[in-house]
Amino acid sequence: MKILLIGGTGTIGSKVANRLDAENELIIAGRSSGDVQVDITNPESIQNLFVETGSVDAVIVTAGSAPVKPLPNSNNEDFLKGVRSKMMGQINVALTALDYLNEGGSVTLTSGILSDDPIPQGTILSTINGAVNGFVTGAYGEFLQKGFRINAVSPALVEDSADALGDFFPGHTPAKMEHVVNGYEKSLKTLITGQIINIE
Amino acid sequence: MKILLIGGTGTIGSKVANRLDAENELIIAGRSSGDVQVDITNPESIQNLFVETGSVDAVIVTAGSAPVKPLPNSNNEDFLKGVRSKMMGQINVALTALDYLNEGGSVTLTSGILSDDPIPQGTILSTINGAVNGFVTGAYGEFLQKGFRINAVSPALVEDSADALGDFFPGHTPAKMEHVVNGYEKSLKTLITGQIINIE
Repeated sequence: MKILLIGGTGTIGSKVANRLDAENELIIAGRSSGDVQVDITNPESIQNLFVETGSVDAVIVTAGSAPVKPLPNSNNEDFLKGVRSKMMGQINVALTALDYLNEGGSVTLTSGILSDDPIPQGTILSTINGAVNGFVTGAYGEFLQKGFRINAVSPALVEDSADALGDFFPGHTPAKMEHVVNGYEKSLKTLITGQIINIE
Repeated sequence: MKILLIGGTGTIGSKVANRLDAENELIIAGRSSGDVQVDITNPESIQNLFVETGSVDAVIVTAGSAPVKPLPNSNNEDFLKGVRSKMMGQINVALTALDYLNEGGSVTLTSGILSDDPIPQGTILSTINGAVNGFVTGAYGEFLQKGFRINAVSPALVEDSADALGDFFPGHTPAKMEHVVNGYEKSLKTLITGQIINIE
């Protein structure tokens, strides 16, 4: 399969790349690294990315961020940072992919546990992850009409981030990276669609 | 209770107003009608609204919209219309309310069934409703630290909209308006928090 992996040099993406690299034609997109560059906060940059890659069999996004910040100090602009990156960045990739997926193609996005299992200072991510999940739930029917699938992987705190981020997630058991990567492989290779694949 | 009801002249809001008017000091805010005016897409207008009302015991939002549109024809700007109105409009009301709620105060937002039960052309609303639900899940802990509560009412297609919108919701059973209003009253008068109150 020809797979475009956006965010393929990040914590999760690099492990997904390791799993998929041997048996696929893998194109890794990153903001400043990888095979091709993209700024997912810019819809035009996403369009240019797909022009460069041409049609693909699958798109996986493991990119996008949102501020972690006490709620009383958070304002409209803080939320919009997450909207532009992890929310609309991923959604715009999915919308653009509708024009570039080969028959039977799939899109796999990344949300995260905070939409359902919150932490202090995590409200912006809870909001953005909820939006990504809602998008997948809303979009899968019209993806289906084109013969495409779409899912989101929703990981818990991942073990490779536990040292850096664990203090923000008291009492959370980190998810094994192998299990997280399994989620992306499940979305890619089975025929499920419209699913939020929770990895705990 | 002194209650600020934003969107209190709309389909749902007017019925909520009918229920609450007799026993409360109800301030109805609307874009162009009601007791006071507010444009919820503008954070400054929200701030001005609260300056005008002063502190309140509860805020209920039944305002906010998002485009209904085929997914392949939807772009970043279409989604941002929903982001600015039903998503960030409500979130900015909640953030501003943190500075204006009296002791034991509550915020009740409105999401909707499409985050979980999608319809064709409804992806933007599915996304925005998911964001609102994620916000409530993320935010209730930091509301709790201030002694406040926050919930969302998530109604199905409401019976008062069934004639106008029913064709978009094939096979959906409209929710009785009385049950929908019950959801807002439950959020207002019980001690629940962080809940998505589904009304089907």
